[in-house]
Amino acid sequence: MNAPAVLISEVGPRDGLQSITRSMPTEAKQRWIHALAGAGLREIEVASFVPPKLLPQMADASAVVEDAIRIPGLTVLALVPNLRGAEAAVTAGAHKLTLPVSASRAHSQSNLRKTPEEAVEEVRRVVALRQDSSRHFGIEVGISTAFGCTMEGRIDEAWVIRLAMMLVEAGVDSVGLSDTTGYANPAQVKRMFRQLHAELGDKAGGAHLHNTRGQGLANVVAALDAGVTTFDASQAGLGGCPYAPGASGNIVTEDLVFLLESMGLDTGVDLEALIAARHILADALPGEPLYGHLPDAGLTKGFHYARDTHEAHS
Amino acid sequence: MNAPAVLISEVGPRDGLQSITRSMPTEAKQRWIHALAGAGLREIEVASFVPPKLLPQMADASAVVEDAIRIPGLTVLALVPNLRGAEAAVTAGAHKLTLPVSASRAHSQSNLRKTPEEAVEEVRRVVALRQDSSRHFGIEVGISTAFGCTMEGRIDEAWVIRLAMMLVEAGVDSVGLSDTTGYANPAQVKRMFRQLHAELGDKAGGAHLHNTRGQGLANVVAALDAGVTTFDASQAGLGGCPYAPGASGNIVTEDLVFLLESMGLDTGVDLEALIAARHILADALPGEPLYGHLPDAGLTKGFHYARDTHEAHS
Repeated sequence: MNAPAVLISEVGPRDGLQSITRSMPTEAKQRWIHALAGAGLREIEVASFVPPKLLPQMADASAVVEDAIRIPGLTVLALVPNLRGAEAAVTAGAHKLTLPVSASRAHSQSNLRKTPEEAVEEVRRVVALRQDSSRHFGIEVGISTAFGCTMEGRIDEAWVIRLAMMLVEAGVDSVGLSDTTGYANPAQVKRMFRQLHAELGDKAGGAHLHNTRGQGLANVVAALDAGVTTFDASQAGLGGCPYAPGASGNIVTEDLVFLLESMGLDTGVDLEALIAARHILADALPGEPLYGHLPDAGLTKGFHYARDTHEAHS
Repeated sequence: MNAPAVLISEVGPRDGLQSITRSMPTEAKQRWIHALAGAGLREIEVASFVPPKLLPQMADASAVVEDAIRIPGLTVLALVPNLRGAEAAVTAGAHKLTLPVSASRAHSQSNLRKTPEEAVEEVRRVVALRQDSSRHFGIEVGISTAFGCTMEGRIDEAWVIRLAMMLVEAGVDSVGLSDTTGYANPAQVKRMFRQLHAELGDKAGGAHLHNTRGQGLANVVAALDAGVTTFDASQAGLGGCPYAPGASGNIVTEDLVFLLESMGLDTGVDLEALIAARHILADALPGEPLYGHLPDAGLTKGFHYARDTHEAHS
């Protein structure tokens, strides 16, 4: 059995659930994460280790991580804003930490109360924690507002790449690019990921794309062209700071899996099981809008998974 | 002033309005078409010349065409299912006719009550009409179900290209490919349009893509890569046989313009004027769902049109 061609990193339980006001009960979160893993998702960002005062929705982060790491074969990711969060996440057993660093100075101040350079220093402290730790864990960064910022508008592309190089120098395993605000276009995505690959080599990370302006999957196609093989996505498009009703924030996992499989790119995901997992969300968060075109329209007649064919890959 | 890099052929007044049950008043249709042209759209498919018994929404096709051809610089397109419709459309003054030919035999029978070969014969009769006519008009075909069919599933790609060659041989000006059912994926779109260009040269036509499964703009990116420069789209995503609430059928003109302009591709369209034209729809068809992410999220800070820059095109 070959490893799937593309890794989808499901961010719904973290990015999705922290974006809505109410808290999903811990037991429902755990059931959802098990269902997502059962559908074939091999990496899930399950929680954020921030003070419960700031994000009560994530108060059960440790319990969620402790449960998720018992799922065989699943890589359990946790977002940590700082060293303190990193310590808690590692204690809970997270396999990988993801740290926020923003390319926009205005966004960095308002979101992290740090300059980008100070955020890199915080990353350095987490790398030092790993060096001193007996337990191995991954450390990755997705650079927020890499494609533009609602406060600053355009972000200098050379600066984003320089920031990525600073992060590699600080010792992280990989650096990806995040379209936090739905600003990216396919030409820019292709250009910047090519540049990232040229400068970072195998430390170039994945794409975190939003669908705020309907451009999410268009940007995926461009990123694939630039050699990106890891994509963040969220079941039902939950999270990603939607601007308006009808506009999902994160790209929808269900639609992304359909895109990739139709193109002949193996994701390892079973779409029927994935769509079934939406019921857990619908039951635990009644009234919450669930996005996605594929769940409404259904699979195409004659659809088959990339893993079930020897043609495709054209 | 250079000609825009990409031509958007707006199909809302035809494809959109024939897909909804009620009829939009003629005066409102005319106002809408003027507003769309005023926003910079240079080609609009304004009506379908089918018997009013079958499509009462299109009973005013002649009046709509007669009004639209008075708009300076606008190419007025009409869909005609057969010779009789073509005669009526030409009499009304349409600049260009588009004829339906379906690659799927099952779809062709159920939609046109003809085999694909019989549909080509009907096209031939319309070409003969032009040869005998004192008035010049364009004739184009978009091959329906070119990427798959809800009845037949997969459609043989070589057959689609052969059908396109038969249509060129029959004398049409251009042949495009239509994803009538939302089956296309970017790998397939790129492969088939490359093949179409290789076989048809400058008679290769545009892409008519649907967003049924959320893949519309992803397929646009692939088509651009294959050299396609004409795209059908519909304001507010109206039409295109939506399967389910929440799923627009046609790709949304507003989101397409944003995609192209962000990539540095000039469309000639003004997004604010285009978005303002939605009010005419909302007023004339109250309650009708209007799709599109850009109208909700708004333009990005620092956005500029391709025509206003000398950088872009990267």
